[in-house]
Amino acid sequence: MYKLVLMRHGESQWNLENRFTGWTDVDLTEKGREQAWQAGKLLQKEGYTFDVAFASVLKRAIRTLWIALDAMDAMHTPTRLSWRLNERHYGALQGLNKAETAAKYGDEQVLIWRRAYAIAPNALDLDDPRHPCFDGRYSDIPVEELPATECLQDTVARVVPYWAEHIAPAILEGRKVLVAAHGNSLRALIKHLDDMSDDDIVGVNIPTGQPLVYELDEDLKPIRHYYLGDAAEIEAAMAAVAAQGKAK
Amino acid sequence: MYKLVLMRHGESQWNLENRFTGWTDVDLTEKGREQAWQAGKLLQKEGYTFDVAFASVLKRAIRTLWIALDAMDAMHTPTRLSWRLNERHYGALQGLNKAETAAKYGDEQVLIWRRAYAIAPNALDLDDPRHPCFDGRYSDIPVEELPATECLQDTVARVVPYWAEHIAPAILEGRKVLVAAHGNSLRALIKHLDDMSDDDIVGVNIPTGQPLVYELDEDLKPIRHYYLGDAAEIEAAMAAVAAQGKAK
Repeated sequence: MYKLVLMRHGESQWNLENRFTGWTDVDLTEKGREQAWQAGKLLQKEGYTFDVAFASVLKRAIRTLWIALDAMDAMHTPTRLSWRLNERHYGALQGLNKAETAAKYGDEQVLIWRRAYAIAPNALDLDDPRHPCFDGRYSDIPVEELPATECLQDTVARVVPYWAEHIAPAILEGRKVLVAAHGNSLRALIKHLDDMSDDDIVGVNIPTGQPLVYELDEDLKPIRHYYLGDAAEIEAAMAAVAAQGKAK
Repeated sequence: MYKLVLMRHGESQWNLENRFTGWTDVDLTEKGREQAWQAGKLLQKEGYTFDVAFASVLKRAIRTLWIALDAMDAMHTPTRLSWRLNERHYGALQGLNKAETAAKYGDEQVLIWRRAYAIAPNALDLDDPRHPCFDGRYSDIPVEELPATECLQDTVARVVPYWAEHIAPAILEGRKVLVAAHGNSLRALIKHLDDMSDDDIVGVNIPTGQPLVYELDEDLKPIRHYYLGDAAEIEAAMAAVAAQGKAK
């Protein structure tokens, strides 16, 4: 039996400001840093150790990983970063306030953009300074592979190959794996692992900063999964995530 | 022409307490963190970017790297960690105060242990809790390869293969490389790069937290090297390092 631990980054500045973030490289808030520290301390208390950690190339996931590894006294854990674990690209919505966007377009349209499996917001133009082709960290990636917007289906399509080529082989080699990523890249992974329908995955809310443990069989099929930590706290965190897109 | 940047970690708790550290996994002091931040800011100001960073598996080097990358807004830089970049193993001296050791054995003996190229302190016994075989991060390394003490010659012997197999190929592929490591693992690297004699290398003092730039030709032979930053500050830092082993 294998164990895999997934962790969504703690609160970021734009979570706090209720803005669509996507690939924008915003940092954690103080609360987000504290969440990451607590997650690391919890993992340490429960006896978890990791042979390799994966994260996106966005600093809110990397800092979550760094802080958690520091809290576990395991800064020496090898880490591998990939754009394929980045948050879903939010296209032209990136930077907009979620409540304002909801007030303007209606809750329903925003919910469609946020939660419809196969409907993406408008794409960024290739000359938009927000387009990832202007960011040096993506310079090795052919521009036609770089997203300018994504629906969750698109995110799944670029997360799953990374799972198959990098994460799954590490687990099958017996390495204990931690993945620090984002709400939608983790949804993509969970959809694949649990073989969930397109409809079911959009209803899954992953709380920030709570280690999510997957127990996997020899074929990496999930046996069960559970959050570490206090159940009531996790419920509240999930409800908060679910409420984020509504106009105030 | 290639550029390689070397960086010795900032002040650690045991630098401050003047104790032999070696492979003991002590952390940076606040001053050490500040040095790392300033080093990162200096690199950023001078326009440096890195495609890959290497560090030891000791937290004072890793934290130096993390803080410097954070200061450069480059947390997404891929990093590779190896025990081969660890500080020289100080054997049975690990944990002892340098001034007390000098008072007990004499400045001359301590200087021999610190600076003779081929004379190592007494080795740790295999059942000494300080022996690296008890530390999980080294569990993949055959115990006969794990040092229980080292002279600088031994450190050179395990640093150079890592240079040849991992760092040099990355540079030759055109990647911009940063190495965050330790006084003696960097000495080992410099001895190899500059083809220095056994006598000459022991007189080289590398200041903490100061980026050291090597310009290399197409065969990775050094053209010249220099520290970034204020010259007077660097002089003072080198003199402080040279004075460390003396009884007070």
